[in-house]
Amino acid sequence: MYNFTIPAVNTEKKAALLHKINHKTKPLGALGKLESLALQIGLVQNTLSPQLLRPSMLVFAADHGISQVGVSPYPQAVTAQMVGNFLQGGAAINVFTKQHQFELCVIDAGVNHQFEVNANLIDAKLSLGTANFLSQPAMTNAECLEAINRGTEITTTQIDKGSNILAFGEMGIGNTASASCLMSVLCNLPIEQCVGRGAGLDDNGLQHKITILKQALIYHALPNEDALKALTTFGGLEISMMVGGMLAAAERGVLIIVDGFISTAALLVAVKMQPNTIDCCIFAHCSDESGHRLMLQYLNAEPLLNLGLRLGEGTGAVLAYPLIVSAVNFLNEMASFESAGIAGKS
Amino acid sequence: MYNFTIPAVNTEKKAALLHKINHKTKPLGALGKLESLALQIGLVQNTLSPQLLRPSMLVFAADHGISQVGVSPYPQAVTAQMVGNFLQGGAAINVFTKQHQFELCVIDAGVNHQFEVNANLIDAKLSLGTANFLSQPAMTNAECLEAINRGTEITTTQIDKGSNILAFGEMGIGNTASASCLMSVLCNLPIEQCVGRGAGLDDNGLQHKITILKQALIYHALPNEDALKALTTFGGLEISMMVGGMLAAAERGVLIIVDGFISTAALLVAVKMQPNTIDCCIFAHCSDESGHRLMLQYLNAEPLLNLGLRLGEGTGAVLAYPLIVSAVNFLNEMASFESAGIAGKS
Repeated sequence: MYNFTIPAVNTEKKAALLHKINHKTKPLGALGKLESLALQIGLVQNTLSPQLLRPSMLVFAADHGISQVGVSPYPQAVTAQMVGNFLQGGAAINVFTKQHQFELCVIDAGVNHQFEVNANLIDAKLSLGTANFLSQPAMTNAECLEAINRGTEITTTQIDKGSNILAFGEMGIGNTASASCLMSVLCNLPIEQCVGRGAGLDDNGLQHKITILKQALIYHALPNEDALKALTTFGGLEISMMVGGMLAAAERGVLIIVDGFISTAALLVAVKMQPNTIDCCIFAHCSDESGHRLMLQYLNAEPLLNLGLRLGEGTGAVLAYPLIVSAVNFLNEMASFESAGIAGKS
Repeated sequence: MYNFTIPAVNTEKKAALLHKINHKTKPLGALGKLESLALQIGLVQNTLSPQLLRPSMLVFAADHGISQVGVSPYPQAVTAQMVGNFLQGGAAINVFTKQHQFELCVIDAGVNHQFEVNANLIDAKLSLGTANFLSQPAMTNAECLEAINRGTEITTTQIDKGSNILAFGEMGIGNTASASCLMSVLCNLPIEQCVGRGAGLDDNGLQHKITILKQALIYHALPNEDALKALTTFGGLEISMMVGGMLAAAERGVLIIVDGFISTAALLVAVKMQPNTIDCCIFAHCSDESGHRLMLQYLNAEPLLNLGLRLGEGTGAVLAYPLIVSAVNFLNEMASFESAGIAGKS
């Protein structure tokens, strides 16, 4: 059974951090969101001189029973094929993690394919994918809890290796359907506001997806206060492992870079379980997947980027990373008005 | 006399570039703005495999006569002091150019201070600053043309050293006043829509700035089709050098990263002189300076970032650079569906 206790961030250095930020050689507030980011990172690390160490990207992959009923324009086999692509270095997440020198961990959380043993693939496979949640819960309670545990373990290993900033990505044909249902239940919003085109559904496909998910939501009729129940019912193995990973990161005071729609849905579950998890979260971007903007609003999150991305894999999180580095760098490296001998505002 | 001929970008590789982008292992369009950026860069460089070489940041600094009448909360001396800060490495632009390995060139275009000889300061000083444009043109025709020439020369030197992507930044107390007037004249917009708080004016200061600039615009009563006349009347030495630099870059088919309000105002002048200049421009960000959003809209520009920055120096341009690299990298490095053996959309 998972058991996290995540305290609120320590704010004892807040005044000192604000003083440091406000005395840099720039007009007050002129670095915009980078300033609030620098403050947040300083608070999370409880220091005036934060550091980002060994950034790691954990990409969890799994298959979804719901994909049997036509909620994605791509066949389920693409999940396994894309994992192969990650291992061969050809996917977008490979390109961007290489650019920004992230450790990239690819995790088989439950893909419907038996991979050959590969040193670059972490085998955490719990099953060959979830059940179709149209008529039964996606997972058993035991499966969901075990997925949370495995996500926690994998994440803890990265933290123990020295990472203090982690990003969570995913691959799973059909997983926007899971994320939409989680959002509908946990944010108490009609499913129409939570569903988008995923990997590229047309109008008919979108309508079909809404109809299917509405049916599933009515069938299960979940209360909106039980996040674990919602995760068990509508989640995926990759989403459950991300939930465990995010909780583990927050418990250790490690920064979490939140990616797109699926990643934010996992965080939504984590926040419902442990609200202080959000203190450690940097929201990378607002994706083009309909529903993500509303989900971010629900979390009072102000993402760094808005580039019309809708790829997943964690790509948006890695693309935002240089801005996080810039926030830390200006805090550590810029001169102050005093040290540079510059006149203040009249 | 300046004399540029900037042709429209060559579009012969457009279909091949789109094919390459669309066959990468991702849903169609899933990399959002990075995809249009990759296309643009491929077109500007006329290749399917673009490269970014020796990125350079040119920061032009100059003083403004209009600062005598209280359009900024900072005294004019801050221009020279900030140039000193650039040379000592303590400013935000130092931190970010170091992070992204830009060549940083600091240019004295006309600061009201005699600097000691410094190998890191390019002396292009034309005067100790512009005249107060409240009652006379900021520059003579000859000065403005010479500033354009010097900007061209400095930029050409960087291109000759191997840079194929250039960013233009500035420092000059009072230069948002210049940029606002240029915008009002060239976009034919009421000054109220073009004026912001600059380095941090309060409500009274903002109202005073509007009153002053309205008076100046009425006094000169310029036609909106003569960009050179507008630049001579309301511009700054740093803005004029940026205009020359941008025109020189576009003429050589070099990418231009456009920064904030002042940098975009310089581009506005360049585009009025040579409309095809815009083909080479990557708009880095929408700043928090009121008026910038409208100026970007006027140029049909879609900036990459929106971080509430209002610092200038070129900081936003450098912060956006990793995204430009990512656009080039995905185009060059990602696998295609065919090469990775991945099923397409049904």
